Amino acid sequence: MVRAGAGTNQEAVRRHNLGTVLAHVHRAGRISRAELTSAMGLNRSTIGGLVAELEVLGLTEQAAPTGARTGAGRPSPDVVPATDGAYVLAVDIGVAGLAVARVGLAGRVLSRATASIPTSRTPESTCEAVVELLRLVVRESPSGSPLVGLGISVPGLVRSADHLVRLAPNLGWVDVPIGTILAGRLGLDVDVTVGNDADLGALAEHLRGAGTDDADLIYLSGEVGVGAGLVVDGRPVGGGGGYAGEIGHLQMDPAGRLCHCGNRGCWETQVGAPAIAEAIGCPDDRVAALGEVLDTQQDAGDALRAVGRDLGAGIASAVNLLNPQVVVLGGYFRSLYPLVRAEVDETVRSRALVAPNEHVRLALPSLGADSVLVGAAEVAFAGLLADPVAGLARSLRDVEAALVA
Amino acid sequence: MVRAGAGTNQEAVRRHNLGTVLAHVHRAGRISRAELTSAMGLNRSTIGGLVAELEVLGLTEQAAPTGARTGAGRPSPDVVPATDGAYVLAVDIGVAGLAVARVGLAGRVLSRATASIPTSRTPESTCEAVVELLRLVVRESPSGSPLVGLGISVPGLVRSADHLVRLAPNLGWVDVPIGTILAGRLGLDVDVTVGNDADLGALAEHLRGAGTDDADLIYLSGEVGVGAGLVVDGRPVGGGGGYAGEIGHLQMDPAGRLCHCGNRGCWETQVGAPAIAEAIGCPDDRVAALGEVLDTQQDAGDALRAVGRDLGAGIASAVNLLNPQVVVLGGYFRSLYPLVRAEVDETVRSRALVAPNEHVRLALPSLGADSVLVGAAEVAFAGLLADPVAGLARSLRDVEAALVA
Repeated sequence: MVRAGAGTNQEAVRRHNLGTVLAHVHRAGRISRAELTSAMGLNRSTIGGLVAELEVLGLTEQAAPTGARTGAGRPSPDVVPATDGAYVLAVDIGVAGLAVARVGLAGRVLSRATASIPTSRTPESTCEAVVELLRLVVRESPSGSPLVGLGISVPGLVRSADHLVRLAPNLGWVDVPIGTILAGRLGLDVDVTVGNDADLGALAEHLRGAGTDDADLIYLSGEVGVGAGLVVDGRPVGGGGGYAGEIGHLQMDPAGRLCHCGNRGCWETQVGAPAIAEAIGCPDDRVAALGEVLDTQQDAGDALRAVGRDLGAGIASAVNLLNPQVVVLGGYFRSLYPLVRAEVDETVRSRALVAPNEHVRLALPSLGADSVLVGAAEVAFAGLLADPVAGLARSLRDVEAALVA
Repeated sequence: MVRAGAGTNQEAVRRHNLGTVLAHVHRAGRISRAELTSAMGLNRSTIGGLVAELEVLGLTEQAAPTGARTGAGRPSPDVVPATDGAYVLAVDIGVAGLAVARVGLAGRVLSRATASIPTSRTPESTCEAVVELLRLVVRESPSGSPLVGLGISVPGLVRSADHLVRLAPNLGWVDVPIGTILAGRLGLDVDVTVGNDADLGALAEHLRGAGTDDADLIYLSGEVGVGAGLVVDGRPVGGGGGYAGEIGHLQMDPAGRLCHCGNRGCWETQVGAPAIAEAIGCPDDRVAALGEVLDTQQDAGDALRAVGRDLGAGIASAVNLLNPQVVVLGGYFRSLYPLVRAEVDETVRSRALVAPNEHVRLALPSLGADSVLVGAAEVAFAGLLADPVAGLARSLRDVEAALVA
């Protein structure tokens, strides 16, 4: 909350407060005026004015209040995101597949499309395929509905300063400005953000998934390689350059297999897709779809159970270092964990120290396969939430026409 | 900054602002009124009033401004902590030694005393020895100088909720309420805080040491066992229960030595004091003073160089996971690092990924052996900085008389 005062710009304050109201609606999905009043420390009539302005902007609408109310008189309607209101486009570039979605406020996935990644996996061919998918989802968008941002997830190291993809080893990308390339290809003049897949998965599961009540969360991403997104004390962790979370490169065994990073025995050599594929005899051409293959497994077998123990050992290291409340198992770990739960849980229990172990639970992503897409949407909404008026002014209302061939 | 407004308690706001001014003085050591005005967004006369009140309270005093000033007229005096003003007592309970200090605002160590820890290492005998040391340092305190807090560091897991020492393996402590025991023994009615040694070292090196410009810092503590204090995005990391930083229990080698935690190949078994002692042929009765022994070494030898590589490998794991700007080597690592710098640096370089490696430097603690004491003092000052008026009201002015026999 910011109060207007001598020397402050009242218009800036009003816009900031407008954004804060919208952020509350976005976070909660539905919120009462009383809750807004209490959360923002502003009086009822100020909140009423801000809510009315968001309605005029077409961002929110009224909904009949739910639940019992105390006090006299008819309760005010709740505030919810407007149907056919602002949306963002989210792009998840995976090692094997591409997924795009049109996502509304409150993280509602309005439509999605998926495809295999082009065999060449070059940034250019990948962007070409992404554009085709985006055409499919924007075709369904209501006419005049404003596009306010584009968020891209990549399985690699993204420099926070300028969103350059420094390294996406399993795509063979080094220093790729994927946001710039895709924006150029699209011809769309909207804000583009780029993030690491595990970081975005962590953000989504913290805001809307398995860790909404947890200030300290680790999201593990199994996507050929292994990465983590970290939330510490309620805030996403980027590190000095934006590269935090490279949990796949914890040394686990100095006599272990050679990793693509040049070292031996990184965790990724034990619990990455190739190791799991070997354990279950998965053919090479199916490794990229490892999650699906794992979903067809009846039971684990000794080799996979050993992978489960290695998975538990790495989780225990992270638990000892970060003392999280929840570790969310995303990517192909969603399919692996149910098969080797006993081995994972037992190894975490025996390898993590007693005290941090009291606090931690292992969980599957509540958002299922959508964690990363929802996270990419979340960062794409940041501009609108910071200043709804300016965000809408920069928005694009005829996206299909704007998409260049 | 908090502004007074309708419905806010003006007295509470004034006290909060008073604390914020004092916190700026405490953090900077010396600050001009112009800097305070700019940092707090309050006008010059309000700042002048707050500064005058801190002087009346005996917490700060005036100092001739340093450096060239622009503008007309005589510059206002700078604000510095008062000589003989408020102080805290800091207690560092190490595995081998005890250190206590009287510490003033701005982290000035005014006097210190050290002793070996009693052989029994029980909480009771330890507290008895600590009381004796505290008598020595308070004897030198100016009469009437107010004691405003007591901070205790322990080499173990401290529950953040209630400061219970859950486990201090190298002291043999389990579930010890050391703050309560020491406060009872002292008979002092002041705020007592308890923290983990590495957490406190990290805080001190971040605020006043080797990492003042670094938002992301890891402080490694070598104190028989191995721990870490983490600062992420400028904030200390506690984790769900306060136990974050147990870096000594990263699994580094599944075929490694047995650790006291029951597992094999924890990092602590490679770079903990016993491993280093073995590498240099240090006799058992000198292991607790390993830093001093290392300081007498002329050069490393093969075995110690191997320890250096293990040290680098663990640091690289932490760099990959957290992407810090600086790793500060505290405790006996201060003495080890200069002997094996080439091996440590080369291993970090080869094992950390290229991108996070660009950001990180390894450093010795700027505060030398005082990091942990200064960190313990820092948390002990928190009450005074939150509300100087209430903090002084709770303070004790005749500490020597109050110390029970």
